[in-house]
Amino acid sequence: MSEMISESSAETAAQRRVRTTEIGAHVGRRITLQGWLHALRRLGGVSFLILRDGWGTAQVVVEDEASLTPLTAQGAAAESVIQVEGTVVAAPQAPGGLELRQPSITLITPVTEPPPVLIGKREIKAALPTLLDHAVVANRHPARRAVFRLAAGAMAAFREVLGEAGFTEIQSPKLVASATESGANVFAVNYFGRTAYLAQSPQFYKQVMVGVFERVFEVGPVFRAEPHDTIRHINEYVSLDAEFGFIENHFTVMALLRQVIAHILERLAHGYAAELEIAGAAMPAVPARIPHIHFADAQELIWQRHGVDVRGEPDLSPQDERRLGEWAQAEHGSDFLFVTGYPMVKRPFYTHPDPARPAYSNSFDLLFRGTELVTGGQRLHRYADYLDALARAGYPLEPFESYLEAFRYGMPPHGGFAIGLERLLMQLTGAPNVRLTTLFPRDLNRLTP
Amino acid sequence: MSEMISESSAETAAQRRVRTTEIGAHVGRRITLQGWLHALRRLGGVSFLILRDGWGTAQVVVEDEASLTPLTAQGAAAESVIQVEGTVVAAPQAPGGLELRQPSITLITPVTEPPPVLIGKREIKAALPTLLDHAVVANRHPARRAVFRLAAGAMAAFREVLGEAGFTEIQSPKLVASATESGANVFAVNYFGRTAYLAQSPQFYKQVMVGVFERVFEVGPVFRAEPHDTIRHINEYVSLDAEFGFIENHFTVMALLRQVIAHILERLAHGYAAELEIAGAAMPAVPARIPHIHFADAQELIWQRHGVDVRGEPDLSPQDERRLGEWAQAEHGSDFLFVTGYPMVKRPFYTHPDPARPAYSNSFDLLFRGTELVTGGQRLHRYADYLDALARAGYPLEPFESYLEAFRYGMPPHGGFAIGLERLLMQLTGAPNVRLTTLFPRDLNRLTP
Repeated sequence: MSEMISESSAETAAQRRVRTTEIGAHVGRRITLQGWLHALRRLGGVSFLILRDGWGTAQVVVEDEASLTPLTAQGAAAESVIQVEGTVVAAPQAPGGLELRQPSITLITPVTEPPPVLIGKREIKAALPTLLDHAVVANRHPARRAVFRLAAGAMAAFREVLGEAGFTEIQSPKLVASATESGANVFAVNYFGRTAYLAQSPQFYKQVMVGVFERVFEVGPVFRAEPHDTIRHINEYVSLDAEFGFIENHFTVMALLRQVIAHILERLAHGYAAELEIAGAAMPAVPARIPHIHFADAQELIWQRHGVDVRGEPDLSPQDERRLGEWAQAEHGSDFLFVTGYPMVKRPFYTHPDPARPAYSNSFDLLFRGTELVTGGQRLHRYADYLDALARAGYPLEPFESYLEAFRYGMPPHGGFAIGLERLLMQLTGAPNVRLTTLFPRDLNRLTP
Repeated sequence: MSEMISESSAETAAQRRVRTTEIGAHVGRRITLQGWLHALRRLGGVSFLILRDGWGTAQVVVEDEASLTPLTAQGAAAESVIQVEGTVVAAPQAPGGLELRQPSITLITPVTEPPPVLIGKREIKAALPTLLDHAVVANRHPARRAVFRLAAGAMAAFREVLGEAGFTEIQSPKLVASATESGANVFAVNYFGRTAYLAQSPQFYKQVMVGVFERVFEVGPVFRAEPHDTIRHINEYVSLDAEFGFIENHFTVMALLRQVIAHILERLAHGYAAELEIAGAAMPAVPARIPHIHFADAQELIWQRHGVDVRGEPDLSPQDERRLGEWAQAEHGSDFLFVTGYPMVKRPFYTHPDPARPAYSNSFDLLFRGTELVTGGQRLHRYADYLDALARAGYPLEPFESYLEAFRYGMPPHGGFAIGLERLLMQLTGAPNVRLTTLFPRDLNRLTP
């Protein structure tokens, strides 16, 4: 009535087949590849077929026209799914120095019309709306894949460095009862007849979880209902969040952040060299000590270097950030710059003030090539301080009751930061639009694919 | 105007301090611990203070009453945040065989009222609603922490085994344009004046991404607007999703799933022994070959063993599953059982039929101790098959246009599965309610904390 799954029946062609990135280990042997018909160039008597699989591409040399019959008989065009059995041969002129010869080709899934975006060309020629409208196919292009592989690598490196530092991964709820962090810019959800909201960040939960595990991180979606249509805004993105207790002040947080950024970049440099090259990434060096400048000094610097008086402004403009980035490069040879001590008026209520200058905060932004990449800082940790801060902000206590309970029952000095994954990829790869750094972006007008 | 962050200024007490789990490496030396006042027992001339940090607890012996003055002067009660400097001494009678003596105690954050849930007792006495209402504090209890640490371990193991098998991690959008998978049970979101929905699963996106990377996985939140108030339902949960191409049929998927489950359990057994013990987990063995039984045979078996005729029913009831679980245990000594070939009528439109018996599907459920833990199967991969399936289901094509585009331009035979993280933890730890396996559960009535 029942049988066991035998080990052999579970071994399929997919498991016996060789990946395109591994054919170098099989020179002189016949192997099986499976993948997509990436390109086919027919040059008189000989054809060059490029097979793409989930990892890379391989060149197949077809000297016997009849070998192509399984494809031609059904009019199989680019992106058809195929299997190729062939002999691996070292060929200095081939891409990667290897190719398959004497192929036996099988058609697995035929495609008979050209795709909306050409995948087999070195460069993607399509315009942005086409790329986004047809992302389910366009994302197959090696240059697009490279970006998404880097995203995976960055997430893995983030978890790795924090795991080693004793951080515990959490998954906090995305459906929340109130638009607590700020009244605006949240998406409302019909939750069994009540109104719920989509979390703008895991901020409150990661702080609460410092009370549980001291050190926590989360990698997950956050939702911002900001009605901005710019190259730098999307409405759902991936946030790399960390929060930890028993810090001295925001400088403890900045020191950890330096380690995290350095580890991510190192992992990408070592494990994703091909992707970085395809994506056109210019890798920065992370200085052993990232330079930092206080907000007030930064404004003074802009005044002295550029004659532009932004002193007294409560925040830095994108142009201010670019100027500071140039200064960090010129003065310190650094792609990175910490700006510390942003005015309290511009920071959320849970921000810890600078004890010496209470109008300024123990918070920071990390600028990467003149653009804000990370925001972080020290948070309030005393219950009484929260009651004061909420009163000053004019917020009611009730929506914050559960959050406040954590502080009522003992919280250590703590802080953390949030890295926007897409922003990081955009800066790293020089992508002209942040929408190109996420699989299926969500913006003011786009909910599909 | 700017300074460098010196390495030494970044080294705080938090970094110099020793974790409770590491004091064994410091016997005979004075060290600094930081954490929470977990418990304080005063026995005449001597007091025993238990300090809890993010990783464990340590016993501190206070022989000089005056050492407690920093606490008593401010009436500091349980959950106060403290620092203890003391000498590590081997003490066979102490928990873990080690304790701190001659302590110097510092009060970091005082707590002056008892928490709503007692954290310092071995067992949590609070009732479920109290535990959930006060989760921000209750989750600090070692028995609660153990469950969440296991969750983190399971996620890490899932990513590890799939990463080694060449899978790429993805993050798919949670805001989607249509309630595609099924019309019901989705949450509606006000998306800049339009209606969007929260994704019930990453199903469509992970399939599409098989076209990009062949093998993908995702760990993320999914949202189910099911109005069920049972011990097994929550409305937001964490799904461990995998999908991959070039499979033979659903048996290829089942073989991978066996590896994944075995790896998760092995990692937990080796890396989380203390948590498994605290959480009361009964660890199953994963057979080298998990027994499997066809849906029709399973119904026949129930008829023959129990005299209950469920033959012809389109699905298995929870009671049927329990009976099959008992049979798998009795007949095969296995906590796990695959039921294969569920009728097509009960499976989603993208399910691949059994070519030999088209009324049955190439899908499966994995039962763990008589409860469904995982659902998976082979999916349709030909464009024409999708058009047929949607027509048969009576669905319009338009909402599926982007999804279908992936199949129009070449998809291999593929399949995958989804493991419910909370369901796995519930079965593993024998938790009486799934709400106890997630940090801050969401159900029909609960949106906070």
